[in-house]
Formats: sequence, C-alpha cells, structure tokens
Amino acid sequence: MTATAAERAAMAHALEVARRGPRGLNPQVGAVILSPSGEMLADGWHRGSGTPHAEVDALSKLAPEQLRGATAVVTLEPCNHTGRTGPCAQALIDAGVARVVYALDDPGVVSGGGAERMRAAGIDVESGEQADAAEALIGDWLTVQRLGRPHVTVKWAQSLDGRAAAADGSSQWITGPEARADVHRRRAAADAIVVGTGTVLADDPALTARDGDALLPHQPIPVVIGSRTTPADAAVRRHPHAPLFYSGHELDAVLAELRERGVQRVFVEGGPTLASAFVAAGLADQVLAYVAPVLLGGPRLALTDIGVTSIDEAHRLVVDEWLPLGPDLLAIARPLTSGENTSRNEGDA
Amino acid sequence: MTATAAERAAMAHALEVARRGPRGLNPQVGAVILSPSGEMLADGWHRGSGTPHAEVDALSKLAPEQLRGATAVVTLEPCNHTGRTGPCAQALIDAGVARVVYALDDPGVVSGGGAERMRAAGIDVESGEQADAAEALIGDWLTVQRLGRPHVTVKWAQSLDGRAAAADGSSQWITGPEARADVHRRRAAADAIVVGTGTVLADDPALTARDGDALLPHQPIPVVIGSRTTPADAAVRRHPHAPLFYSGHELDAVLAELRERGVQRVFVEGGPTLASAFVAAGLADQVLAYVAPVLLGGPRLALTDIGVTSIDEAHRLVVDEWLPLGPDLLAIARPLTSGENTSRNEGDA
Repeated sequence: MTATAAERAAMAHALEVARRGPRGLNPQVGAVILSPSGEMLADGWHRGSGTPHAEVDALSKLAPEQLRGATAVVTLEPCNHTGRTGPCAQALIDAGVARVVYALDDPGVVSGGGAERMRAAGIDVESGEQADAAEALIGDWLTVQRLGRPHVTVKWAQSLDGRAAAADGSSQWITGPEARADVHRRRAAADAIVVGTGTVLADDPALTARDGDALLPHQPIPVVIGSRTTPADAAVRRHPHAPLFYSGHELDAVLAELRERGVQRVFVEGGPTLASAFVAAGLADQVLAYVAPVLLGGPRLALTDIGVTSIDEAHRLVVDEWLPLGPDLLAIARPLTSGENTSRNEGDA
Repeated sequence: MTATAAERAAMAHALEVARRGPRGLNPQVGAVILSPSGEMLADGWHRGSGTPHAEVDALSKLAPEQLRGATAVVTLEPCNHTGRTGPCAQALIDAGVARVVYALDDPGVVSGGGAERMRAAGIDVESGEQADAAEALIGDWLTVQRLGRPHVTVKWAQSLDGRAAAADGSSQWITGPEARADVHRRRAAADAIVVGTGTVLADDPALTARDGDALLPHQPIPVVIGSRTTPADAAVRRHPHAPLFYSGHELDAVLAELRERGVQRVFVEGGPTLASAFVAAGLADQVLAYVAPVLLGGPRLALTDIGVTSIDEAHRLVVDEWLPLGPDLLAIARPLTSGENTSRNEGDA
C-alpha cells in the first residue's frame, strides 16, 4: 500500500512547515496529523535543539481522543531514542496512532529504529513518500550525520602555474570579476567561512557574501584560525555575524565545535597554509580551484605541503566540472574514492 | 582585373608542385608559365637553399621565344634581391613576361619589393590569388620571418596545484593516456623537440612522436640543452634523427642555429628549468599546460622562477581553448598582447 492523496498533500504541507524551523544542529522536520478519514487535524515542526520534535509538537495540539486511529505524516523517520525529548516512536504508539507515513529514514545510529519499534507495536508504517524533496531540504544535515562533521569546501585562486601571489605578495587581481562574483555566490551557500590569521593580517578580508556592494541575504559566520591576534580594526570584526576565533590548529576540534553550533557547510578560503592543512588531513570534501590564465613563478604557492612524498600518495580528484568564468576556469572537484577509475594506465614518455 | 580560369588552375598546380620542395630554411614555392592563350608551358619549384627559385626553375625549361608575352603564376611574390640566386623579379622582366600572378606578398625586408620592380618595368602584376591556400602551406615559414626565429611551443604537464612531480621526483603518471597521446600528436607537428639535460638524465625520454608503439611519419629533431653529458645509452641517441647538443643556455643563440637548420617549429618539453627559462625570456609563443586533477604539494614545481616580482609583471595569457582530455585538461594559451582586454577590473575581497 502506498500513500493516499490526503497523505501526499499532508507530506507537502509537512515539508512546508519544516522550513519554519532553524537550519542547524538538528534537522528541519515537519509533521501533520490526519483523521482516519484523511482530514488534516494539526501540524507541527521542530524549532531547534531542546524543543519538542515535530511529531510531538503536532500531537500536543490535539486531544487524546482525536489521536486514536489517526495517521501521522512526518518528513523524517520518528526517532527511537530518549534525548532531551522522549522517543517520538513511543509517543506515537502511546497516542494510539494507527498509521505513520514518513519521507526519509533516520540515518542516526542512536536515533534510528523508530519504524521498527512502531511496526512491532502494530502500527502500519510507510516510508519513502516525497523522499527527494525531504532530502533536498535536509541534505546538508544528512551529510553532517554521514561525515560526523560539517561538509568542508576548500577554495583557492591560483595562477595556471599554481601560485597564489607574485613574489612580493601582490595578488590583486589574479582572477577576474566573473570568478570573484562566483566566490561570493558560493560563500552565501555556506554556514561558516574559515580563514587563517595570516590571511586576515595580509588581506584584511570582509568575509561577507556580496553581490556588488550589496550584502547577500545569507551570510556565513566568519571563523579565524591561528595564534596571531586579529586587529581591533580588522574588516572581519564589522561582519554581520560576530567572528569566531580559534587559536589552535586542531582542525578536527574546530569542526566539532562548529558542528555543535549548527554549522553544516564550511567554506575554507585560505590562505595556502590553512588550505594545505585541510587537504593534508583529508578534510576537503570539495575543492574549488579558480585558475587564472596567468604565469607567476616564484615562491608563493596556492598549496604548500600536503604530505605527499611519492606519486602513489597523490591526492587524486574527480573534477565534476571545469567551469569557465570569463577568462578564468573553476575546477569543481572532490576526492577520488578507491572505487573510481582514474584512467591512468601504463605508458612511456 | 582578377585571375582568369587558366591562371586559377595554374595557381592550384603551382601550390601542388611547391609541396615537392623541402620544408625548412627557405619557403616551399611553386611556379607555372602560361602562354598568352592560357596554355600551361612549364612548372617549377624550389628545392631548397642554394638551388634556383621556383620561377627561375620554370623559366629554365623554356626557350626565350616561348617566354615573351607569357604569364608567370607563382605562389610567393618574386624576390627582389641578389642572394645565391639573382632577383627573380629581374629574371621575369628580362624574359619578357607580360603578366605575373602571385598568391602571397614576400614578407622579407631584403627580398620584398619584387612586385614594385616588375610594375615599374611595365609588367601587369596581380596579387592575392589563392592566398589562403598558400598561407596554409608556408604559414610556419612566414611566422619565422615575422618572429625572426622559429615559433616556440612550451609544453608541460602539471598537477592542478602546479607540480611536475611528487617530492621524491616520481611523476609517472600525473596525466592520463588521452593527454599523453595528445602530446605525441603535437610533437609530430614540430620540427625540433627540445629538452634540458636534467630531463634526459631523470626520465631518459625517447623524444619520438608515437601512436601507441608505432612511430608517426614525421619525427622532430631531438635537441638537448645543458652542460651535463648525455649518457651513451640514452634513449634519445636511438632517435631516428641524430640529436643536437647545445651546452650553453643562450636560448636566442640556440634558436638562431635551429633556424639556420631549417627548423620552423620548436616544441620545448622540459623540464621546469628550461620551460621557465623560455617563459622568462618571452620566447614562449604558445603554452600547452596539461593539467591533471591531482594535488601534490611539495617542492617540484612545473615552473620555477620566471622573473616576476609583482602582480603587475605577471605573464598574462589568452587561453584559446580549455580542452578536456579524459580526466585531464589542456590549456592552449598564448601571451596576452597589450591591446587585448584582460577583463580584470577593480573589486575587493
């Protein structure tokens, strides 16, 4: 048996109310309670860590007699563990709900298993309804669950020969306006933008996401890593979000802290030392290399050392797109996984 | 007045016989003599330095009475100077030719002016007939005249981050088979392939142009630059052409000597020191950078120092094509000339 027309409409509504909740540490989830005849009785959504889950929010709006035999439609599998709230699967069982329709399985090791518990209690459980739409909504949160940390994009601009600047440090501008506008659009899709203190001291970046002079609606939180002090008049201190400062270089710890703050997507903007550290640690889920048709030579490399001694240890990438941006080229790449073909056979020179 | 049908046919034939001559220091030129009624009386072509020019070769096949009032059809403007042969323009005047049709103007400062001399002597002179076909035939020679030296392509393979090898020197293979096959095709279009002794000692390249294991029909002459000795058993010594060795690093002098040997197109294959020297000297008319989706970091750079201190001195390029080759990308580029727009405006980070 698949979802009824009333359940499909309820799921679309549940996805809509889910968006009212905050993006962050917890997923955005929505729920709708239907009467046995398919009438919409109540909706609910999750308002963030420490508040009731969406199902419980919806249940709480109804009298016990309305719930018996009802159908619950939820965008994510009802959870099975007792955190700051009790397990939602048990709440639905206790309420006497007859049927549960949800979109996505809960990927959590701790929180998963709700469907199983409800089926064991005799509830008719249906999964997968509008799963694609639900995944589009909380895909970044799911990625965080899978990785165990925020998703990391490492971005840099370089000359064709791999330099970030000329020998004297001058670098404005290696890439053109099309490439720089693209960077701003991608900054706006991140929750946090990370730089090293070296970059703050050298370039004094604003770390805002802009369209021309105008700020884009979503601004990533600026994060500065390094032991040197950020000057009181640094541009980053005038960012719409108060900057976060981490004096250590333990990237895992920084990412864990950012995750706890609800950061799902991290955009690492440099400089070379920080970018190299993320790549060397295997923490670059995406690489964005903006390549300008310029030759610079000299010592100022876009990547420094990434722990590769022999060609067999190379960080091989899959370039999903070589995207021309005016005279420049953006390589949109991700790490090659062991199962993928490298297309590098034998040969000789 | 433009060329007659008989003259057009004669030019096509002249271009055909021109190809019988050798490619090299002198251009490939063909000539045809037509009777006043448009009958083809004789053809001729240039067989290389020190031999008669095409017009003189054709004239020599006919009796003086056949030449009076005849039309000469030549693929290149008859020359106006006395070198190892007399000026062809004067030979045509002396022969009593009534009309001359040629394809391309002679670009030479010394040899040009033939058309003017002939017109002054009362000959009807027509230029530009099938100029495109003639330019396709001797374009490389024309480029050599314009540059005053052979055309230079500087090629290298690099990781995305600009390295030619891993820290331990291993580099087989950074790029994939599609990129390597492309290199062989382009080698076959060159007259000489240039490497430094460092590359010979490190990689022992064959420097042949191959399709798989088979040698391609045209093989560039291998040229080794540097003071170190090439081992007796080096692969380059088994090349179909005897290698040329230059112990100095004066690139202008090397190119001048190669020009004297009839080399029109030079393919510089490395390593980093030699490639950087050509770029730094402004001698790279074309850059071919084969970029692999690999990150290596470390000290082995595809380009070392190219004399750039500040961003204003950057060697800016025009990339005519970003050509995907399997997983790799070939940047086909040439120096940006001062008149071209760089599309790099103001902005801020």
